[in-house]
Amino acid sequence: MPLDNPRSDFSAWYSEIILRAKIVDIRTPIKGSNVLMPNGYEIWEAIKNFMNMRFEETGHKNAYFPMFIPEEFLTRESEHFSGFVPEVAWVTHVGDKKLTNKVALRPTSETIMYYMYAQWIHSHADLPLKYNQWCNIIRWDTKETRPLLRDREFFWSEAHTCHPTFETAAAQVRESMEIYQSLFDALCLSYMVFKRPKHDTFPGAEYTIAYDAPLPNGKMLQIGTTHHLGNNFAKAFDVKFLDTDEETKYVYQTSYGISTRLIAAVLSLHGDDQGLILPPAFAPTQVVIVPITFKDKVEEIVQASRELAQIVRSWGYRVTVDDRDQYTPGWKYSEWEMQGVPIRLELGPRDLKNNAVMLVRRDTGDKLVVSRDDLQNQLQSNMEKISTDLKSRADETLTSITKEASTFEELSSIMNSSEQGLVATNWCANVSCADKIKEELSAGVLGERHDVEEEPTGNCVVCGEEGKSRIYVASSY
Amino acid sequence: MPLDNPRSDFSAWYSEIILRAKIVDIRTPIKGSNVLMPNGYEIWEAIKNFMNMRFEETGHKNAYFPMFIPEEFLTRESEHFSGFVPEVAWVTHVGDKKLTNKVALRPTSETIMYYMYAQWIHSHADLPLKYNQWCNIIRWDTKETRPLLRDREFFWSEAHTCHPTFETAAAQVRESMEIYQSLFDALCLSYMVFKRPKHDTFPGAEYTIAYDAPLPNGKMLQIGTTHHLGNNFAKAFDVKFLDTDEETKYVYQTSYGISTRLIAAVLSLHGDDQGLILPPAFAPTQVVIVPITFKDKVEEIVQASRELAQIVRSWGYRVTVDDRDQYTPGWKYSEWEMQGVPIRLELGPRDLKNNAVMLVRRDTGDKLVVSRDDLQNQLQSNMEKISTDLKSRADETLTSITKEASTFEELSSIMNSSEQGLVATNWCANVSCADKIKEELSAGVLGERHDVEEEPTGNCVVCGEEGKSRIYVASSY
Repeated sequence: MPLDNPRSDFSAWYSEIILRAKIVDIRTPIKGSNVLMPNGYEIWEAIKNFMNMRFEETGHKNAYFPMFIPEEFLTRESEHFSGFVPEVAWVTHVGDKKLTNKVALRPTSETIMYYMYAQWIHSHADLPLKYNQWCNIIRWDTKETRPLLRDREFFWSEAHTCHPTFETAAAQVRESMEIYQSLFDALCLSYMVFKRPKHDTFPGAEYTIAYDAPLPNGKMLQIGTTHHLGNNFAKAFDVKFLDTDEETKYVYQTSYGISTRLIAAVLSLHGDDQGLILPPAFAPTQVVIVPITFKDKVEEIVQASRELAQIVRSWGYRVTVDDRDQYTPGWKYSEWEMQGVPIRLELGPRDLKNNAVMLVRRDTGDKLVVSRDDLQNQLQSNMEKISTDLKSRADETLTSITKEASTFEELSSIMNSSEQGLVATNWCANVSCADKIKEELSAGVLGERHDVEEEPTGNCVVCGEEGKSRIYVASSY
Repeated sequence: MPLDNPRSDFSAWYSEIILRAKIVDIRTPIKGSNVLMPNGYEIWEAIKNFMNMRFEETGHKNAYFPMFIPEEFLTRESEHFSGFVPEVAWVTHVGDKKLTNKVALRPTSETIMYYMYAQWIHSHADLPLKYNQWCNIIRWDTKETRPLLRDREFFWSEAHTCHPTFETAAAQVRESMEIYQSLFDALCLSYMVFKRPKHDTFPGAEYTIAYDAPLPNGKMLQIGTTHHLGNNFAKAFDVKFLDTDEETKYVYQTSYGISTRLIAAVLSLHGDDQGLILPPAFAPTQVVIVPITFKDKVEEIVQASRELAQIVRSWGYRVTVDDRDQYTPGWKYSEWEMQGVPIRLELGPRDLKNNAVMLVRRDTGDKLVVSRDDLQNQLQSNMEKISTDLKSRADETLTSITKEASTFEELSSIMNSSEQGLVATNWCANVSCADKIKEELSAGVLGERHDVEEEPTGNCVVCGEEGKSRIYVASSY
């Protein structure tokens, strides 16, 4: 059964591909609390491995903090907490006994981590402190859930750092941006980096940098954030150090995170009406070998396919041989295309005789007869080409949905169209105007670009007063 | 400050080493819900990597199932559930709203996994199905907690497999035993494999195989279990398949798991009064390089140490250079000995001149001047020797605590002594006799050995009736 087209009916396409490509199974007893299937799990593991290498290079350490948070912690930084209140899941009983104090399941870990930091940090020699944790997060949205995009339980990475000054913390913000951009580039994503407007800054933070990727339906998806926390949390959790000048000071902090939402961006931005197209570096299976068997040659071809797999594996690729005899080659092609495997190798009797193999690219469908001597080179160069082409295609998507509006009518007309889009415009910086965009157009102000310097080009798109900043508006997940 | 001796005061030694070697920090707001510190986290990651390789070789797939379990799931297999009831943490509220149905945090995942299996398995072609999950587990013990040994939140691996027959499931039990034994051997552990007595079989299982390791205080620690589940759960969760004979049948299942308890076994069995001794393959830092600097040569020695680290790293080792200038070499030696780093390299001006380096083994303290040309070989052979010697030392611990009793007086006298021990004896197989051992001696019947065939050698150690099986008794964590 063919898929919908991700551009014409993204929602239908997304729901179907998630299940058929074995990424997530939502047929669970509690909505928003899903099974991350082996293919989804392996992509997340590949992201973890990439990030752990970058974390090691940059002096981050991994640790794991409790998922249970005492109620009083969440009220200490009340500005921070208020945003999470409606989604917090509370443990009130153990067995048939009521707990004296109810306990929250972490909606984020600032409070428990900084409680520990206060015990660990004493002097300037303890700084910078850079810890990351990979964990499950609970945000029990009672209304809408959507696999990977809005789950009640999901995975993330949250890094939390401490520094002696505002400026060294700001430098850490820049390091996090560099790390994330290397990840997003490796995932062949297209994205923009925004500084969120004040009203949409993370509760308790000085400022928030956010990374937004386009989706084929013209909406934007936040795929990561970095916060400069100033010393607001340090004051609430009493995280202090003795500085070189013998004075006791509060630390300056940053935090940054990515989550399994990132998988949704990768699937959505690269996929097509045949299924997923996975960036080679992160694909659970990078090469699938399909034996083209004929009645009298079955054993020979299957055996040759397995030997080929051993060789390709020794070159460092993750390889699968699909030697199931109950399916036709054509059926197998569709199956592996659905799962987004970047390269398929077909091996039939003629290929075997000619010491060759048919190489098929998932993204373009291009076919190429490759001699065995040339296979290692061809695999490498085609994997690289797929990555480059996926990135170009993603950039084209971003370009194609980016639009311009100078009046509220223009903005409305774009946001009310079926294509929607990412709209560059101008803003007076008053929350009331952002609120009007939200209420009337169900869209948000993503902020000013942080990766590119831009000046306002006209008056506020809502009220017509002087434009204070060049901003981008989009409908987001 | 020196440590206690793990043999003379294990509890004090363990509490201190866990904190000082940066394995776990228990100074958290909720007891039994601790921070897994970077060194502990890295050991667990190394265990995961080892297991994931073995899982891939043997056709297991990793996935992740929800941590939220509906109440009615836990009552479906009531025999199974009753054992967990007192420790289950319940989510009853989200924000300030009460949930219609309270939700359990997984104390184990049979119920949610088999609910999904019932949807995934249709025919014999879907079998065997072998899924593993790495996750956090909640068992809210309201009484005693002890880091890594009994936590309210901990990590584990739980594999759950489905098979067409009792015998193919039994073969899977054997595969799991082979996988675990390869892991325990790589961790240089000593252990025995037991078939647990009927009264101590996992609720809902046909039989339970358990792996028990000795601790220096003469107690035993269960470091893993494998269960043959028969088709009890399949019936409760309706997991059926159409067999080749066109009949619909219930699947047969197995499950097996290891947890962060395993880290406790590794630390306790190998550690000494200088701190940890980590098995080389799993040590977060395998080689530490300490520059022995003199006033006029500081830069030169530190630079040479960093260059040496690059070379040693290129041989595949995890290396740290301790070039902190506020500490003396002697202080650093103690610090890294505490953390159990298997090999220390000392580099001073004379070594530099002689193109040599001092190699020091953590386990024996042996020192060896090694020429740079010979360093790669010496590192390899010393790492191997450390592993072999750790394993021998662990085996000696097991041998030294293994005792024999033929009367209840002998058994009592051993269990009441400060050394305690693992006691081989005989049992009539009546639960009442096991109960008496439990009540009067605070010890348990671990079962018959499963790795070695043994016949009863006398009458029941409790009642004096005919001995039906040769069993082992110990006090366990």
